[in-house]
Amino acid sequence: MITTIIGLGLMGGSAAIDLKKRGFTKRIIGVDNNVLHAETALHAGIVDEIQTLQDAVAKSELIILAIPVDAAVKMLPLILDKVDKQIVTDMCSTKEQLCLSVKDHPKRKNYLAAHPMAGTEYSGPWAAKPGLFDGKAVIFCDTENSGIRANSTVRLLFDTLNMRPVLMDAAQHDKHAAYVSHISHISSFALALTVLDQEKNENNIFDLASGGFDSTVRLAKSSSEMWSPIFEQNAENVVAVIETYIKYLENFKTAIQEHDTDKITSLILSSNKIKRVLS
Amino acid sequence: MITTIIGLGLMGGSAAIDLKKRGFTKRIIGVDNNVLHAETALHAGIVDEIQTLQDAVAKSELIILAIPVDAAVKMLPLILDKVDKQIVTDMCSTKEQLCLSVKDHPKRKNYLAAHPMAGTEYSGPWAAKPGLFDGKAVIFCDTENSGIRANSTVRLLFDTLNMRPVLMDAAQHDKHAAYVSHISHISSFALALTVLDQEKNENNIFDLASGGFDSTVRLAKSSSEMWSPIFEQNAENVVAVIETYIKYLENFKTAIQEHDTDKITSLILSSNKIKRVLS
Repeated sequence: MITTIIGLGLMGGSAAIDLKKRGFTKRIIGVDNNVLHAETALHAGIVDEIQTLQDAVAKSELIILAIPVDAAVKMLPLILDKVDKQIVTDMCSTKEQLCLSVKDHPKRKNYLAAHPMAGTEYSGPWAAKPGLFDGKAVIFCDTENSGIRANSTVRLLFDTLNMRPVLMDAAQHDKHAAYVSHISHISSFALALTVLDQEKNENNIFDLASGGFDSTVRLAKSSSEMWSPIFEQNAENVVAVIETYIKYLENFKTAIQEHDTDKITSLILSSNKIKRVLS
Repeated sequence: MITTIIGLGLMGGSAAIDLKKRGFTKRIIGVDNNVLHAETALHAGIVDEIQTLQDAVAKSELIILAIPVDAAVKMLPLILDKVDKQIVTDMCSTKEQLCLSVKDHPKRKNYLAAHPMAGTEYSGPWAAKPGLFDGKAVIFCDTENSGIRANSTVRLLFDTLNMRPVLMDAAQHDKHAAYVSHISHISSFALALTVLDQEKNENNIFDLASGGFDSTVRLAKSSSEMWSPIFEQNAENVVAVIETYIKYLENFKTAIQEHDTDKITSLILSSNKIKRVLS
């Protein structure tokens, strides 16, 4: 099999490394409109060759879209326009608008929407690494709208990446992703802004940063190219979660302001229940 | 030297392990009103013996308070009442009320206020481990109110724990700690509550939890015994930081609601500046 990966950043690059190493594909063609990313991926051996989108699609049996979701929404219908038997999938963090963009496309059955729930706060081909996806969940959305070949090929792809499949409709996916992924990023971005804001007046504030702060704010290193479009495409869900989040912060604020020990303790004890789902 | 550690949890237990192993003290006496903690620490070899507070203070040259800050504020003056030449220090996360509690005590010079900026989200003697403090900062507060012997003994204690000393007045400390430590915990507790709230209606939400969520919510495992008193004692600073934090969350919410790509991107790019202070 020849596989094309469009977007040679953290996700596309990491997939390329393991798909090649684990024998899923004979050859990987890379496509990236960022020349530096393309050349880095080629020279690092992450892909076998760099091609234009047109040539890559024509030569491949499988095409993986690993670009920011705003670009993916525009590009997916154009790619389906060009395919014959090729199977197409993606790795984007929101799914509803992507599925909507090809709802009535004559080649809709060639496409299967996938969201591998893996990543780091780093980006670009420099961040690509083996094993990124191992043991994590991959969400397949609206699989009934994809053909048998798309289902089996994409399933095998993510089996090779050692991912555990979960089926969900696109709207459900976007809602859940807002809760377990998107709000974590908002929370970190806002925390970074809060502390940086204070730092303007206080030189040595970071002398005090210990393990707790580091891990809570880690996601604030994430790239705006990836996250701005995610928040925009999932605006309704993300706004709802931010509102719930602010509600709980206000609860803490009031309890602390009123020195209401029982209330503070009860909020912390309730939040401790998260232990049962964390490793 | 004989050292007494009052409170044999994560902090006290971890200090005991390294202080003994690195030859700082010949013998460690443990004091803990939680019988299970005391017996566990004794049987695990974290301390050499368990004594009552009265006997332990009488027999020791150095006393380390490693208990929640509300208990410490009550106990510190009572301990200073009992000391002759003994040096006393503590490991609490807030400092202003603690220093205030012994402001006019005749033995004030025997005490030095210390905050080792280290920890994990776990608690109890089971969480104690070697190397917890290595390479982190320790804040010494209002050192001019402590005598020369207290300064040199406590400095040597934290040198042994491989900690980098930072001097600060107690009020400044509490303000900084609110920004780089306390708000991270509030942020995690509230995030856990937000997601648990949603989980009531959605069974499989945690199927989607990947690396990002885990690290952001990790601190929500932290104990209420330790954190309720910290938030209460540092109420004014913590409330101010929560307000700033909510302001930035509202900025994100509005920008997302209005699909204002430029604003979302600008918020993320500003928060990315946190990179320069993270490892």
